[in-house]
Amino acid sequence: MSLIVQKYGGSSVASAEKIMNVARRIVQAREQDNQVVVVVSAMGDTTDELLELANKVSDSPSARELDVLLSTGEVVSSTLLAMGLKSLGASAISLTGAQAGIRTDNSYSRARIMNIDPKRLRKEIKKGNIVIVAGFQGINEEMDTTTLGRGGSDTTAVALAASLKADRCEICTDVEGVFTADPRIVSQARKLDEAGYEEMLEMSTYGAKVMHPRAVELGQLFSIPILVTSSFSNTSGTLIHGGITVEGRNKVTGIAHDLNVAKITVVGVPDKPGIAATIFEKLATAGISVDTIVQNASIENITDLTFTIAKNDLGPAMQIVKPAALEIGARDYVSDSDVGKVSIIGTGIQNTPGFAAKMFTALSREGINIMLISTSEIRITCIIKEEKVKDAVRALHRAFELEQAQK
Amino acid sequence: MSLIVQKYGGSSVASAEKIMNVARRIVQAREQDNQVVVVVSAMGDTTDELLELANKVSDSPSARELDVLLSTGEVVSSTLLAMGLKSLGASAISLTGAQAGIRTDNSYSRARIMNIDPKRLRKEIKKGNIVIVAGFQGINEEMDTTTLGRGGSDTTAVALAASLKADRCEICTDVEGVFTADPRIVSQARKLDEAGYEEMLEMSTYGAKVMHPRAVELGQLFSIPILVTSSFSNTSGTLIHGGITVEGRNKVTGIAHDLNVAKITVVGVPDKPGIAATIFEKLATAGISVDTIVQNASIENITDLTFTIAKNDLGPAMQIVKPAALEIGARDYVSDSDVGKVSIIGTGIQNTPGFAAKMFTALSREGINIMLISTSEIRITCIIKEEKVKDAVRALHRAFELEQAQK
Repeated sequence: MSLIVQKYGGSSVASAEKIMNVARRIVQAREQDNQVVVVVSAMGDTTDELLELANKVSDSPSARELDVLLSTGEVVSSTLLAMGLKSLGASAISLTGAQAGIRTDNSYSRARIMNIDPKRLRKEIKKGNIVIVAGFQGINEEMDTTTLGRGGSDTTAVALAASLKADRCEICTDVEGVFTADPRIVSQARKLDEAGYEEMLEMSTYGAKVMHPRAVELGQLFSIPILVTSSFSNTSGTLIHGGITVEGRNKVTGIAHDLNVAKITVVGVPDKPGIAATIFEKLATAGISVDTIVQNASIENITDLTFTIAKNDLGPAMQIVKPAALEIGARDYVSDSDVGKVSIIGTGIQNTPGFAAKMFTALSREGINIMLISTSEIRITCIIKEEKVKDAVRALHRAFELEQAQK
Repeated sequence: MSLIVQKYGGSSVASAEKIMNVARRIVQAREQDNQVVVVVSAMGDTTDELLELANKVSDSPSARELDVLLSTGEVVSSTLLAMGLKSLGASAISLTGAQAGIRTDNSYSRARIMNIDPKRLRKEIKKGNIVIVAGFQGINEEMDTTTLGRGGSDTTAVALAASLKADRCEICTDVEGVFTADPRIVSQARKLDEAGYEEMLEMSTYGAKVMHPRAVELGQLFSIPILVTSSFSNTSGTLIHGGITVEGRNKVTGIAHDLNVAKITVVGVPDKPGIAATIFEKLATAGISVDTIVQNASIENITDLTFTIAKNDLGPAMQIVKPAALEIGARDYVSDSDVGKVSIIGTGIQNTPGFAAKMFTALSREGINIMLISTSEIRITCIIKEEKVKDAVRALHRAFELEQAQK
């Protein structure tokens, strides 16, 4: 008998009818002689509706109260799913994050899981119950509810799978798996049968929305095989695991893109130690994540510092950059919200120079100008004009022949 | 400095605007140098909406899951109220029933409070916080959420007031207090400045909707003065307390009525010990509350047994009465859902025969036939045709001159 953790996102449980679909899917898994633990997100737009209510009573809602408020969304869907399962004759019980033993730190709205006490979970599994856990939430030392922030339910699912030593974690979503590129942009995009943790991590960090990078990281850390699959059809999905041999696979796996990007350049920065730190520390304190950072080669000890952030962080970021630029004696600062990112991802990319050349050539043939480049062992990312991103994805998908199955 | 527990019902927190009104009202109480603990119900129709969702996924939703589901309604309103208070500059924190230390038995959907551990509550009060507690809910030995059933938030408020030894419990609602009769029926109905626990208990048990009898009983048990008052205006309300001298007040306090009544008569019952018990035990097991019971004087050891129940219990009750009547050898059974109750309530009523005569005369002058009569020390109730109930309330209000202030 295998133990499977399944996670269903908000769009999979958006109505009573969809909840019953999910319930039937879970019963199938149970009937195939599996023990099943299920993690659910809040129904459809519930979280946004609750946020709207909060913003009506307060300009800056208390983080503690907001977490308790938002956590009710997942409690509602978990109880409805348990009821639905019982109406199909299955044994099921819902548990809140707290009841499932998910202990977090005190960072409201972006809590990290510190540890999981699976006592109650194990007890309910032993009783033969399908256990439905409210995703996205935990409890801190004060016994106050916390939420895990973006990708929270994915993280709950993988963390529970790790804690229970589950055989597999299934991320059940509204797409059929991980694709070589976004199928809405590239019609020949191909579903991947498998991917390595590192590849998936880069894919999700650099724009593939199918799974949150934080959950992928956790899966890698605890070696939990993760199956990304559809809640609605019975296709095979994409298995993310660690058993893929890196040496034998110097191939591009997929193209990721991200339109939620803005670029800031601080011009004429004195090239002295600690200068970059001044700016980035202030941004970090304000909770703004900085992505690609490029510093030009210094000419006469003066350099330009360029970095990218999420588009909706641009306003607050400029509030910080303006005085900071003054403070460090920079000549000027400019921002550009009209940019996007396109990345090729695959094992062994950095050790195979041909990939970079092929990427730059493909983009140049489309008349696409590259503003910035950043690389990792298994990824090359170009910052380009936002309006060119879709063309770039299509051109790269063609150039690397991703429509053809790889061996 | 006084400690006050305030309770706000669902209609008082039905929207963000109403929540802000309540928040301002609480701040006023706080500024008058009071420590304030607040109990809230779910916003407006939230509970009904959640029930509807549950009924869509299950014909008979699991009681445990239903309690967890419904409890989220009060969690939502409590967090929004805490946020609203903070946006007004007040220190506030919300607690769930579990966090407020409310321990109940295991009877889902109608749990009884077993005890309250006010440790966390006291800690938050000491910090200077206005503490908002989600009403209607507690936690059982398994650490599973339970709900308290009808009148749950009233009960939470009075129980917390008792546990914290509060100076007063305020039930803040959409009416200005307790009236001599329903003002929608009797335009001259007068607000009572005060009432005794017993009177209030009879009033609420026999139809006055303003407060749940269970909470009144608890107030009496722990001698908690209860102020029933408006959430929306600053009128003085009705103070329910135990300091009213019974001997000096042989007066009718008010007229209560109830349209939610059905009557069942089992005809030709052998008058032997244990016969009535057979029927009532079966009804009790099914969770059906039997109210007025009348057994006619036995003629040749054959009697008729008549009792009343809530109108919506009639269907399930007849399913039980039919076979039970057969079992005990009764001749027939009849039911009537077209009945209602009208009661006069006041201290010393039973010891003053004039009241009963005056009541029956007033009803007879209106041409109202009395089907059944039941009495307590401070109440006389008549079961009459449902269509006559409003006329009866008006006639009795006039006959006992309740429009005039009593000394």
